[in-house]
Amino acid sequence: MIHPTESTTRTLVSQLRSRIGQTVTVCGWVQTSRLQSVMQFVLVRDHTGTVQLTHRRDGGALEAVLDGAATESAVRVTGRVVDNPVVKLGGLEIVPEAVEVPAPATAPLPIDEQSGPEHRLDWRFLDIRRRPAARLGFTVAATLEQGLREYAQAHGCTELHTPKLMGTASESGAEVFRVDYFGRSAYLAQSPQFYKQMAIASGIDRVFEVGPVFRAEPSYTSRHATEFTGVDVELGWTRDAEEVQAFEEGMIAHALALVAERHGAEIQAEFGVEVTVPKTPFPRLAMAEAQELLRGAGWDPEGGKTDLDAEGERLLGSLMRERTGHQFVFVTHYPASIRPFYHARPAGRPDLTLSFDLLWQGLEVTTGAQREHRYDVLAAQAAEKGMSLEPLTDYLNCFRYGCPPHGGFGMGLSRMLMVLLGLGSIRDAVFLFRGPNRLTP
Amino acid sequence: MIHPTESTTRTLVSQLRSRIGQTVTVCGWVQTSRLQSVMQFVLVRDHTGTVQLTHRRDGGALEAVLDGAATESAVRVTGRVVDNPVVKLGGLEIVPEAVEVPAPATAPLPIDEQSGPEHRLDWRFLDIRRRPAARLGFTVAATLEQGLREYAQAHGCTELHTPKLMGTASESGAEVFRVDYFGRSAYLAQSPQFYKQMAIASGIDRVFEVGPVFRAEPSYTSRHATEFTGVDVELGWTRDAEEVQAFEEGMIAHALALVAERHGAEIQAEFGVEVTVPKTPFPRLAMAEAQELLRGAGWDPEGGKTDLDAEGERLLGSLMRERTGHQFVFVTHYPASIRPFYHARPAGRPDLTLSFDLLWQGLEVTTGAQREHRYDVLAAQAAEKGMSLEPLTDYLNCFRYGCPPHGGFGMGLSRMLMVLLGLGSIRDAVFLFRGPNRLTP
Repeated sequence: MIHPTESTTRTLVSQLRSRIGQTVTVCGWVQTSRLQSVMQFVLVRDHTGTVQLTHRRDGGALEAVLDGAATESAVRVTGRVVDNPVVKLGGLEIVPEAVEVPAPATAPLPIDEQSGPEHRLDWRFLDIRRRPAARLGFTVAATLEQGLREYAQAHGCTELHTPKLMGTASESGAEVFRVDYFGRSAYLAQSPQFYKQMAIASGIDRVFEVGPVFRAEPSYTSRHATEFTGVDVELGWTRDAEEVQAFEEGMIAHALALVAERHGAEIQAEFGVEVTVPKTPFPRLAMAEAQELLRGAGWDPEGGKTDLDAEGERLLGSLMRERTGHQFVFVTHYPASIRPFYHARPAGRPDLTLSFDLLWQGLEVTTGAQREHRYDVLAAQAAEKGMSLEPLTDYLNCFRYGCPPHGGFGMGLSRMLMVLLGLGSIRDAVFLFRGPNRLTP
Repeated sequence: MIHPTESTTRTLVSQLRSRIGQTVTVCGWVQTSRLQSVMQFVLVRDHTGTVQLTHRRDGGALEAVLDGAATESAVRVTGRVVDNPVVKLGGLEIVPEAVEVPAPATAPLPIDEQSGPEHRLDWRFLDIRRRPAARLGFTVAATLEQGLREYAQAHGCTELHTPKLMGTASESGAEVFRVDYFGRSAYLAQSPQFYKQMAIASGIDRVFEVGPVFRAEPSYTSRHATEFTGVDVELGWTRDAEEVQAFEEGMIAHALALVAERHGAEIQAEFGVEVTVPKTPFPRLAMAEAQELLRGAGWDPEGGKTDLDAEGERLLGSLMRERTGHQFVFVTHYPASIRPFYHARPAGRPDLTLSFDLLWQGLEVTTGAQREHRYDVLAAQAAEKGMSLEPLTDYLNCFRYGCPPHGGFGMGLSRMLMVLLGLGSIRDAVFLFRGPNRLTP
């Protein structure tokens, strides 16, 4: 029987200040080399910072290793940490005793500062590795997600994983990817909508899910992707969408407080953005009021638009910011004509829905609603939308045996990150972007 | 502008003991009704317990509502909590003042205690709702996941979401689902393997991912599914698989300690299983030793098997339990012939890999390895397996520009839950099962 051995002790660059005078091992990448006639200076970067190796040429093996290590080679450096106020990087340096190059890089690198955005996406791993801001983005995304999850858990949600493979393209039929499935067709879930409602019908009181959602939408904008990470919540026994909104604003405020606390200073330094924790409640505005406000500011001069377009959302974001000082706004009571059949409608107003979008700085980051839980009304609303009820059978069956009132929302994690970090494109807010023209790397 | 209103105060059944003498509102489902000539007794269940409503017939509206509420109707009950030691359910009852039935159930229910397993899967929401053990399973799964995540976060992992849509069926080609993608083909990721390695090459030091994985495998066993939740870890700068195993055993011990602490008593009561926190390190056994041990116990009498089959895994689990008292065993050093091309091999032993499986009570719950990070060796190992290098281009490119040594593992969350709760089938360990013959509900 084999038993565990001690693993090599590795020191992170951020820990070096506390190791002055000691011999340590640092693992990282060659960032740049200044190879002079007498001295060799090599900057080595790990995920926590960059340190200078300082080596006086002596004709030995180490000299040759340092001369030969191309930019971005992965190196394992053992050496003594020396306090040296002259060195710009933290006022210290490592005097190396041994340098291994377990993974040399080929020269030249395929991208540089001049590379265009698509070419950089082709070499995404290298682009991320060479830009501390990009790596920080993933750390921030993870903290944001953790904050959302903490709030959901603390408020009674059970985290669940629902299938991405569906037997029918039931939610809308359009914009759904078809999958070959053992000689028949399956479809990729556009959202966990039906399944999280099914969880409510299962007696799981409140549900939280983080997972991929798939949209077969030929959109080429800076805010659309064919696959993205959705954060979904569904709450049993809500009386109206207002309870869902109250849950969501609390969740966002909690998550942004966590991000501000952990990364506020770094985000300011790398992205020039101040993370502010939003005050609750967020402002709310019914769709009819929103349109009135927008039309007063010159939006949709023909007066023909039922829904908000991206331009309207941006304008509304700035108008509301002027009026309220708030970055968020819930737009509520969307017309039934532009909302899915499963959104509940106010009593006596079949033309409206108990639904909302949440805009953050003018970008839609969430859609939510109180759901229609009455079987007959739900089936009638589906029929009214011209939907065939047969593919909806499994879904509708949930409402025949006591599915309580409920409501929920779906949030796009990458859109949240776009606004949080002031990114120009969703391509920069995900690890590997997927769009109609991009399935690689 | 609309502003938030107070939400209705709801009391959970588990909180009733502290509300004796007060008027509360309870939301739940009608479990059973005993409608006698003088008295009406209705049991109402929510996700925290069951309470008895006790109502004396008086010819009023409430009497009619209680008579009419079929089993599994969703009800909202307002009434006074009364201490009554005679009542079996917690020694208390609610004397109702008002009962709403926002979602009546149709009678009869489509499943009962005699329903077979497939029929119960058809009506999964109802089966879960009516079995507290099933609901507990999801709570336990969420806690297990939380424990794994906590450990990963505390040990430097960044939680990441990698694409499930891939441009090439690169990992193996077999057992991959094909997707129609804007007139061409995409493929569903069998695991985040390539992408989490790409994250290491991106300078994200350690990676954690929880997400769906897809296997187009026509397997009909109790432990296979075509879609399941994978928990993936990848660690930069590991020297060998041993470091990965040490990480994993620590992670599992932490997660099981959290499960034992939160749900140990309930799991014992509902599933008859004692949750024990495993001691670390777990036993380790090289594949060659494992086979020797197994053959000594009569496994594979023809001596022709290279890999362990399910029977061998089960037998090994019990043999190791006898020898070590431990429920877990790492089987290490699998032959290269039955492992993927990207597993690293020990120096001088091209026939072996630095890989492992983790068995828990004889069920494989994890595969892991030190990865081959050297471009030339990796390409040679792929070619040796007869793989075409062209579809691997994006993957292999990661190893040309300084991808450090690394290792990791993938764990099946539902298999972990199966063993933890002693479930007979993976169908009971997931919310909605997906298999070759099942895409619904």
